[in-house]
Amino acid sequence: VKKVGIVGATGYTGVELLRFLVNHPNIEISMVTSRANAGSRVDAMFPNLRGYLDLEFVKPDLDALCECDLVFFATPNGIAMQSTPALLAAGTKVIDLAADFRIKDVAVWEKWYGMTHACPDLLGDAVYGLPEINREQIQQANLIANPGCYPTAVTLGFLPLLKAGCIQLDDLIADTKSGVSGAGRKANVATLFSETSESFKAYAVMGHRHQPEIAQTLSHFAGDAVDLTFTPHLIPMIRGIQATLYAKKQGNTDNLTQLYTDYYQNEPFVDILPEGVPPETRSVRSSNMCQISVNQPENSRRIVVLSVIDNLVKGAAGQAIQNMNLMLGFDEATTLRQPALLP
Amino acid sequence: VKKVGIVGATGYTGVELLRFLVNHPNIEISMVTSRANAGSRVDAMFPNLRGYLDLEFVKPDLDALCECDLVFFATPNGIAMQSTPALLAAGTKVIDLAADFRIKDVAVWEKWYGMTHACPDLLGDAVYGLPEINREQIQQANLIANPGCYPTAVTLGFLPLLKAGCIQLDDLIADTKSGVSGAGRKANVATLFSETSESFKAYAVMGHRHQPEIAQTLSHFAGDAVDLTFTPHLIPMIRGIQATLYAKKQGNTDNLTQLYTDYYQNEPFVDILPEGVPPETRSVRSSNMCQISVNQPENSRRIVVLSVIDNLVKGAAGQAIQNMNLMLGFDEATTLRQPALLP
Amino acid sequence: VKKVGIVGATGYTGVELLRFLVNHPNIEISMVTSRANAGSRVDAMFPNLRGYLDLEFVKPDLDALCECDLVFFATPNGIAMQSTPALLAAGTKVIDLAADFRIKDVAVWEKWYGMTHACPDLLGDAVYGLPEINREQIQQANLIANPGCYPTAVTLGFLPLLKAGCIQLDDLIADTKSGVSGAGRKANVATLFSETSESFKAYAVMGHRHQPEIAQTLSHFAGDAVDLTFTPHLIPMIRGIQATLYAKKQGNTDNLTQLYTDYYQNEPFVDILPEGVPPETRSVRSSNMCQISVNQPENSRRIVVLSVIDNLVKGAAGQAIQNMNLMLGFDEATTLRQPALLP
Amino acid sequence: VKKVGIVGATGYTGVELLRFLVNHPNIEISMVTSRANAGSRVDAMFPNLRGYLDLEFVKPDLDALCECDLVFFATPNGIAMQSTPALLAAGTKVIDLAADFRIKDVAVWEKWYGMTHACPDLLGDAVYGLPEINREQIQQANLIANPGCYPTAVTLGFLPLLKAGCIQLDDLIADTKSGVSGAGRKANVATLFSETSESFKAYAVMGHRHQPEIAQTLSHFAGDAVDLTFTPHLIPMIRGIQATLYAKKQGNTDNLTQLYTDYYQNEPFVDILPEGVPPETRSVRSSNMCQISVNQPENSRRIVVLSVIDNLVKGAAGQAIQNMNLMLGFDEATTLRQPALLP
Repeated sequence: VKKVGIVGATGYTGVELLRFLVNHPNIEISMVTSRANAGSRVDAMFPNLRGYLDLEFVKPDLDALCECDLVFFATPNGIAMQSTPALLAAGTKVIDLAADFRIKDVAVWEKWYGMTHACPDLLGDAVYGLPEINREQIQQANLIANPGCYPTAVTLGFLPLLKAGCIQLDDLIADTKSGVSGAGRKANVATLFSETSESFKAYAVMGHRHQPEIAQTLSHFAGDAVDLTFTPHLIPMIRGIQATLYAKKQGNTDNLTQLYTDYYQNEPFVDILPEGVPPETRSVRSSNMCQISVNQPENSRRIVVLSVIDNLVKGAAGQAIQNMNLMLGFDEATTLRQPALLP
Repeated sequence: VKKVGIVGATGYTGVELLRFLVNHPNIEISMVTSRANAGSRVDAMFPNLRGYLDLEFVKPDLDALCECDLVFFATPNGIAMQSTPALLAAGTKVIDLAADFRIKDVAVWEKWYGMTHACPDLLGDAVYGLPEINREQIQQANLIANPGCYPTAVTLGFLPLLKAGCIQLDDLIADTKSGVSGAGRKANVATLFSETSESFKAYAVMGHRHQPEIAQTLSHFAGDAVDLTFTPHLIPMIRGIQATLYAKKQGNTDNLTQLYTDYYQNEPFVDILPEGVPPETRSVRSSNMCQISVNQPENSRRIVVLSVIDNLVKGAAGQAIQNMNLMLGFDEATTLRQPALLP
Repeated sequence: VKKVGIVGATGYTGVELLRFLVNHPNIEISMVTSRANAGSRVDAMFPNLRGYLDLEFVKPDLDALCECDLVFFATPNGIAMQSTPALLAAGTKVIDLAADFRIKDVAVWEKWYGMTHACPDLLGDAVYGLPEINREQIQQANLIANPGCYPTAVTLGFLPLLKAGCIQLDDLIADTKSGVSGAGRKANVATLFSETSESFKAYAVMGHRHQPEIAQTLSHFAGDAVDLTFTPHLIPMIRGIQATLYAKKQGNTDNLTQLYTDYYQNEPFVDILPEGVPPETRSVRSSNMCQISVNQPENSRRIVVLSVIDNLVKGAAGQAIQNMNLMLGFDEATTLRQPALLP
Repeated sequence: VKKVGIVGATGYTGVELLRFLVNHPNIEISMVTSRANAGSRVDAMFPNLRGYLDLEFVKPDLDALCECDLVFFATPNGIAMQSTPALLAAGTKVIDLAADFRIKDVAVWEKWYGMTHACPDLLGDAVYGLPEINREQIQQANLIANPGCYPTAVTLGFLPLLKAGCIQLDDLIADTKSGVSGAGRKANVATLFSETSESFKAYAVMGHRHQPEIAQTLSHFAGDAVDLTFTPHLIPMIRGIQATLYAKKQGNTDNLTQLYTDYYQNEPFVDILPEGVPPETRSVRSSNMCQISVNQPENSRRIVVLSVIDNLVKGAAGQAIQNMNLMLGFDEATTLRQPALLP
């Protein structure tokens, strides 16, 4: 049994980690930290955990965290990088669910995240935790940059097309839509129920932090720079991301659904639907699955890929646990093999 | 491994049974029936089950069902009673998630359900499947009347007060609220998104079928007739029931929270919150838990009990599986020990 | 044309006042104040007003406000009472949409609102702005305490029964439910979309500020103290209040629907539905109407009254404008005669 | 005062027409037809109209309809074309809110709508009722094809770019999203609350009827065929459409916001927001306004236009009334100048 700690578990990714971890047979939750809530029970804040977790929040203490085998950071951007060097030095593995280690180019990172990086030398060691592209490196990694929610949906949707070379790299569009939980659990007028229910809007249309993260992965994978237009939108629902991806055909584009099915045939958490069957976010809600369909519409010169995930699961906590399972040598799907909640 | 069949699995209680059963270690899903959808895959209708269930719907066939150890009826009212005598005769246990066996008095049943009962002689044998009051009988039963969703929330909320004799029997009120999934998965203008979202209303205010079901249980338990006013409402959300219960004090009403905690101390799926902490339906969404708080407000002569469940789980499929576990000799909580999905 | 000012118009009652006032033929909006947003355009915060209102927020300035004929306070509790004496002295009429002047007994007010009242001597002069009971006084008033949202729905629902003497005063229950906009437009974790959507809960179950406000009005009207149990709940929708009212019958209770219809026959904004037809909050959404049905259910010794309003309109801004129309001698329904938005 | 009839007013566009028309000073609602509901009061089906409309549904009767000055068809596709020739012959003007007269090429129409057109000779006379492009023709017209909801949002969003020639015609994308009311008020499993709430999906991804309608208008306007990829999605909300439009730059693209502002400067119902300010559907909910922003994001070679409308108002009933006002010689904005309902 491995000892696991969670730093900053008062947000949605924190409680979601706990929901899966309390039923994980091979780990023990050693500590759950929150500076503001130290001393109060975790299940007082999250009553869904009553009967499943008998812990209080504790103040984050680096020495105590160093006794864990693995620590999750479910914190705002800029926190994990403060403690990661010490944890790694102590032999504790780290999975950062925030963005501290997602971008390899420190200048790009500092531009988009508006702060100086505390340990840029670790950016090279950090493994981007998308098992579908980096499974072996993740198994060997001590430091995981858990991917962003949009990047997970978009990257998994574009990969087989890039691999097959049947789209133009200089003309990609990702029109993405997310539920409100992606904005986190913090007091904020803009994400009040009365501000977001019964409404839909784009946001960050002039530029969003996930654009360079996606472009980095796709460019690396394609071996050449991609041109990606990325437009995020806010959906009046709690969970779920849909990425609608547009790419211009190049070369042979027959049998794209077969291409995708083959590409992901051994993946436990990517599922390809038939052409013309649009995935629904509810079919993956609460689950670690990504469902994708690839389509060539009538009246269009383009390929349209539809990719859905639960932003808090495959887009955050579930993927982090998938990474943990790989890092600690467990079956990759442990505690994650559960059908989505429908309806 | 026991063989289990599900009749009529195209509704929400059907897919919810499947969500839990695919991960049950001691059973095998032998068949899933649907007259209208025979020949199509179950996971084509419910894509959350892709990868978890490799079955097609089949036409309901009594001989085939008789080879199951246990059959769930997730059908409209009036269906289960047609086949139950034959199934019982064949040694197959039956759990009816509809109302066919819930009311002991056949005249009352026929009044509220508007049809002639097909096997009134079985009403006496059927066990009302609320484990918190009938655990031993359920373990011995061959035929279970799975309780209604409202009756589960209301009955669990009132029981300790009735048992302790600290309320007047002739003056009970249950103001209840349910998510829209309680109305089922059938084409209907009244439960369209555009009819029910951003709105709230009472319904069936002049009389609802669950009133006699609740009154029957409470009266039986109290040993005397209760007078119960029951008002159901529709909430613009998918899952969840809240029952707000009002009772007039009688005798000693100190330490009611302790009374409830003691009463339910061995129950795996009833959880008592402190006074003044209102339960939220989301804290039990997707889970089999019932959370209750009992309160004595300022400015009031009344006790106010707040009771929440997920109508599709503790109010239907989860409770049915809890009953199945008891009937088949498994651990009562098998496949049901999962924290609720929050948020 | 009368000059009207709005203090604190960055909340939901503020924007709702503006929605109605921009189309009012007899008034001119002189100023809209906000300390935090002074200098920015009102329609930058509320883009629904683009093209309808060409004003910037200004800092609240008492001298400037004194030049208005009437000032609305759409502020948090405790603000209006600071400036009201000066405004009244200058001949400016005041409508407070907050609670500063709702409770006649200053000790009760100070207990529930947790502050010292700034001008308790004005409590006697303030007229409770429910036109259905105080129309003549409102016409003469200089200071209006605009009723709370719950009190409006509950009071209008109980009045005809109290008037007719056909219920027991010592046993009233108001089980009330409100949309989330009732909590206002301020940064707050508890009213985030992800905290309130797909969930339902009671709150303030041990005691809520609207209980004494309602009890004051009902007791005054009945001529004797009433005993009222009041339980508010939060509905996952933006707008709407439903009050489900329970009262024990006394004397003749025939023809209650006729009683209600007669009682409210001259009221432009109270509408009585037939028995057994439950009102829906959406039927009054965006409108100043209160719809009510009065019911005597089967299996019950009680009268069940169902009363719905839009909490931001008849429960706040619409009622304030109804009061303004009366105070300034306009037709009472000016700018308010609009059907609700359905769906 | 002109006499107006509405055929098929039991759907959402019907009740929305009524909401606006009851307050129109220059018309009288002569009759409201519904075959299924003849003899019952309109306000029994739509209680928001209680007190505003004292009519019963009547069976559609062609002679009676011919006595109206103008008839709206708020019917399913294929109904209006049956009666239109007779109405026109009688001198009654017709506005069809369905699709019968939207497509000029009868073969294209018959392919997408799956029926034989009843009066293809009228397709040439019918004026496409988008006032922003056809105002003069509408004023003279006797038969209006009221545009589809998506086509309104998409066309208004692309027009200034086409006019200015600063985009490539062969590479347009419209990623569109609609609230559920667009699917109408008919019994249907797919649009139940429990099927559509807390979920998001694309639909009709292989081809949708609105694609040829949009392409027809844009091509006509550009003077050359456009290539348009059109992907509709379903949003879990009642009202609102967002169109996110992508076009590849060509020539000078400076000052696009100024271009749009100038282009629509005299339009009462098109409003241009600053670049980088994304419109929200709620800012136009219940109103006839279209709000648009045009953006050139960082990291993109494309122009991204965001266009929002209320699908039931500018996308249906409001636009129909705008057309009626033009046809009957009233001020174009009569009864339509109302700020949106926010929140």
